[in-house]
Amino acid sequence: MPVFLSTAAADFEARFAAMLSAKREDSADVGDAVAAIIADVRARGDAALVELTGRFDRLELTAEGLRFSAAEIEAAAAQVSAEDRAALELAAGRIEAYHARQVPEDAMWTDEAGARLGWRWTPVSSAGLYVPGGQASYPSSVLMNAIPARAAGVGRLVVCVPTPRGEVNPLVLLACKIAGVDEIYRVGGAQAIAALAYGTETIKPVDKITGPGNAYVAAAKRQVFGRVGIDSIAGPSEVLVIAAGAQNPEWLALDLLAQAEHDADAQSILITPDETLARAVAAEVERLLPTLPRAAIAGASWRDHGTVIVTRDLAEAAALSDRIAPEHLELCVDDPEALSTQVNHAGAIFLGGWTPEAAGDYVSGPNHVLPTARSARFSSGLSVMDFLKRTTLSRLDPGSLAAIGPAAVRLAESEGLSAHGRSITARLAALNQG
Amino acid sequence: MPVFLSTAAADFEARFAAMLSAKREDSADVGDAVAAIIADVRARGDAALVELTGRFDRLELTAEGLRFSAAEIEAAAAQVSAEDRAALELAAGRIEAYHARQVPEDAMWTDEAGARLGWRWTPVSSAGLYVPGGQASYPSSVLMNAIPARAAGVGRLVVCVPTPRGEVNPLVLLACKIAGVDEIYRVGGAQAIAALAYGTETIKPVDKITGPGNAYVAAAKRQVFGRVGIDSIAGPSEVLVIAAGAQNPEWLALDLLAQAEHDADAQSILITPDETLARAVAAEVERLLPTLPRAAIAGASWRDHGTVIVTRDLAEAAALSDRIAPEHLELCVDDPEALSTQVNHAGAIFLGGWTPEAAGDYVSGPNHVLPTARSARFSSGLSVMDFLKRTTLSRLDPGSLAAIGPAAVRLAESEGLSAHGRSITARLAALNQG
Repeated sequence: MPVFLSTAAADFEARFAAMLSAKREDSADVGDAVAAIIADVRARGDAALVELTGRFDRLELTAEGLRFSAAEIEAAAAQVSAEDRAALELAAGRIEAYHARQVPEDAMWTDEAGARLGWRWTPVSSAGLYVPGGQASYPSSVLMNAIPARAAGVGRLVVCVPTPRGEVNPLVLLACKIAGVDEIYRVGGAQAIAALAYGTETIKPVDKITGPGNAYVAAAKRQVFGRVGIDSIAGPSEVLVIAAGAQNPEWLALDLLAQAEHDADAQSILITPDETLARAVAAEVERLLPTLPRAAIAGASWRDHGTVIVTRDLAEAAALSDRIAPEHLELCVDDPEALSTQVNHAGAIFLGGWTPEAAGDYVSGPNHVLPTARSARFSSGLSVMDFLKRTTLSRLDPGSLAAIGPAAVRLAESEGLSAHGRSITARLAALNQG
Repeated sequence: MPVFLSTAAADFEARFAAMLSAKREDSADVGDAVAAIIADVRARGDAALVELTGRFDRLELTAEGLRFSAAEIEAAAAQVSAEDRAALELAAGRIEAYHARQVPEDAMWTDEAGARLGWRWTPVSSAGLYVPGGQASYPSSVLMNAIPARAAGVGRLVVCVPTPRGEVNPLVLLACKIAGVDEIYRVGGAQAIAALAYGTETIKPVDKITGPGNAYVAAAKRQVFGRVGIDSIAGPSEVLVIAAGAQNPEWLALDLLAQAEHDADAQSILITPDETLARAVAAEVERLLPTLPRAAIAGASWRDHGTVIVTRDLAEAAALSDRIAPEHLELCVDDPEALSTQVNHAGAIFLGGWTPEAAGDYVSGPNHVLPTARSARFSSGLSVMDFLKRTTLSRLDPGSLAAIGPAAVRLAESEGLSAHGRSITARLAALNQG
């Protein structure tokens, strides 16, 4: 049974705090094993990739076989049904339209001191996208990572995907093709991250690595951070549904279960001021659970992490939501826009009962790579900005240097940095002579 | 003597690659010591801070003395000369004006399927700024970190600064006051980062930590990342000066030395197609070096890491610059704007001979916290964006769900996520009945 809390109960604060701090994920310490894999790939390049792929993925390759050929990609794409292809293309088009709006503008202006100031955005030259293999090999994740990179103008886009025993999801290869991925390699795990960061004979290094993965992939991303850029380290996924008014309990139950079916570590939370609705939704979850193909996973998630909270009102629900800082927040209430203004920390907000979170996973347009584990307090979902960087620009002339330079000299001297000061006074001296 | 290279030389590529991959920083492995400090602060709170401050900073405190009182801050501020105060205020005003322009806009639109889509930016609730103590306790860094946080709308802004033997730079406290810092604590090192991330009785935890620090501070930031957000891990600083045409060798030499005087690990690089200018600048560096108070540091940096490269032309200089991806790039050439369009990877560009990098360290307006160690390939300097996060918004109605929902169902089924699909089909079924 999930946890059932009421904010009116005397022990609420303690139980809510316990839920907030509960660890949902076993963090196996794989750091040493990953460090050894990275060192091996750096030392032996392709030979290490071939050997490690044989060991971990039970796949015998040669260096030449690491990369999917154009013919292999075409053959896989041809296996995909017309309906699946159309769905992928609809999703890709919508994700592209949303992310195209995120491209920021350059700026340049002259201020009252006569200084020319501004900034300019440029894309990273190359990006590597990790795509998990097996069960979690999701074509939607390919689109959600690759399309923002393309929208940013990344020049070279590389995918690494493990193919256990040679098995590959044709939809993943088709999604790569639709999103304009340049190179696809059948390599996974920490060895793929090492190859993307340091390069091998076959795989040239990239400047930024994104995409989800298991504990080995996450540890490898942490270790190569600094050498290359990385996105956030994904934790188990969560949804918070705030509901009130005339809502359909079955719909809400399915939204909670859609989160729970991802992973036994996933968390589904319902917050409502309406105890009758709370009980109705919980009953629907129990009714629907056995009908799901992934009932075992969803059931474990709901039993171990599922939480129902009855509040005094919606304002209290919004305040609790901010303490949770959920990855996904559904506002199934009469005026979701109004309630959303009371929310400060959430990865994505789904407004109203006709906006199931699952639509956002695939086709709405916003990214489905979102901050987990309360990190929406300080971070954002994946976007075009993750594949851009900003260069600041400044240009002084004799007049503006004369206006603001003396203050810089003063501060440099106070910090004991005399060459800093003299680099300005030497120029000001030339002005005074001129 | 610095390295002197020519792109026309047969061994250039090998020597340039060696310079690129040279490690300038000793990365002492302090991870275990830092983990112990963090665990101690988590377990014992203020008591651990008091004890560790006694041990590392030789300062006997009580828990009550951890925080600077308003009276202490006023007293320190009153010690600052009117000229220094005016310089700080000029700098603060200019930094604020620049960063205010970075605040991004929210967006919301309705697309052709009838979906309402958009995003909203919100500030992190609280931020902690680490300020090093002793020699590197720079008031300018307080402004460069605190003002973007304020511009973002951060509600609570906390500074931790070690005060070895009780010593504190009054300008640092005045800078905190000018920038609107809410709380200042005399705690440093890994223990300060632990307190900011996890909280103690006296120091409430924050959501984001920024600011430079030594190896212990850097390791602590890495370890608390995920619990809180952090900025980049700063490495040794570098400047690249590209020069051509009628340039003053003394000015360029002082710009190179301003970088070198920071730190023996700092790096100053000159690239020019004009060998005569290259030799003149190098001679000026040698002439000026002994006149600097920090000659020992600047001399070590120039001797060990200083590099002069003579190229065939400016296009080649820009291409080499992109391989270096410098933190600071001065373009001391006749048409710096034109040359800047050939540059893709740099933290900050200083355009023309009247824009010494040192002006940007203090008063130009752009941030001086910039990506080091080639990370300008994938990251940006500190900005208002570091203190904001984006929540994506979506709202479907029956019409738009009917238009795009079936594609989501198709993709959910292909990924084996049936509750995802059913959360949409249950709604579509209600529509069809309606």
